[in-house]
Amino acid sequence: MARWDPGTEQRLRKAAMELFQRYGYDNVTVTQIAEHAGITRRSYFRYFPDKREVLFANSDQLATAVGEAVLAADKDTSPLAAVLGALTEAGSHLAERAEHAAERHAVINSSPELQERERTKLAALSAAIQQALRQRGVAPHAAKATAQVTTIAFANGYEQWIEANGRKAFADCLATATLALRNALTDSPSAHSAD
Amino acid sequence: MARWDPGTEQRLRKAAMELFQRYGYDNVTVTQIAEHAGITRRSYFRYFPDKREVLFANSDQLATAVGEAVLAADKDTSPLAAVLGALTEAGSHLAERAEHAAERHAVINSSPELQERERTKLAALSAAIQQALRQRGVAPHAAKATAQVTTIAFANGYEQWIEANGRKAFADCLATATLALRNALTDSPSAHSAD
Repeated sequence: MARWDPGTEQRLRKAAMELFQRYGYDNVTVTQIAEHAGITRRSYFRYFPDKREVLFANSDQLATAVGEAVLAADKDTSPLAAVLGALTEAGSHLAERAEHAAERHAVINSSPELQERERTKLAALSAAIQQALRQRGVAPHAAKATAQVTTIAFANGYEQWIEANGRKAFADCLATATLALRNALTDSPSAHSAD
Repeated sequence: MARWDPGTEQRLRKAAMELFQRYGYDNVTVTQIAEHAGITRRSYFRYFPDKREVLFANSDQLATAVGEAVLAADKDTSPLAAVLGALTEAGSHLAERAEHAAERHAVINSSPELQERERTKLAALSAAIQQALRQRGVAPHAAKATAQVTTIAFANGYEQWIEANGRKAFADCLATATLALRNALTDSPSAHSAD
């Protein structure tokens, strides 16, 4: 048997989601996930460093993809437009491939430990965006601020996309979420009566 | 001896900071912190649930104070103004009392585990703001967006206040940080050449 096998990784994620939904995240062990997927506990750790990580398999790829897309944007594109373009592309790709996105979201929201890991993943996404913007010559504070607000827009947009349950495109959700953050910072009372 | 004593709590924080700076956060144990403060390991846990928490003693009070101040703001005050007013007040109070703020910040930045705890504390601040805005009748998405951007402004403003090393008021740092987030979301190239 190969040391690392994408089919096994996929099976582990599926097994974990099934068990987390059935018994609750806190009540499931790595051993149970491994056995449910037909491998040993020891083999599990070839694929994921801990119990949490099995739910965040695509997060690291997302940060890398977004960082690369920001760097690849046209030279004349503004920092915000470059990042939103990258997030639209990578997020739409992620959304298309996402299986059980709503169930996964519910599991994460059920556990402080998983929410913590999710915040860490979002911080890594923000750091990747910030670094790419710096490489595009954006000034330090502006690169940081842009990375922070777009990362929140991404998280909110993805949540809205999940809530829409297939009725909205991710791109539209991201645009709506970005506008809501802009309105929140412009302090006109009318901006706060839209939702 | 009293079961809980503010002097002991203060001594534990001081002992922890000293040891973390001298040996590095990862190399210090709860037992060492307790002994350095002249108490037992067991007594330590009367004051803090784990090693990390000794660095975040004022965070929970901050979230409560900010939530209360948002609720207490004039009825006609906009959501953004209400939150920024609350954060200015509570943040200035925190900044005035802060001892070793720069050293504490450096210790937190040295450890992924501490950065994780800091993000959790900021999420709690954001949740307190969001809840207070909801109680003021702000619509759900707007309350969430306002809480998110102001929490980031607070974190960035506090960092800038630390970097300024006493040369700037916290209120000015918060205002600058808020403006940077607004500029980041307005997509005019000139907004990105300011720092």
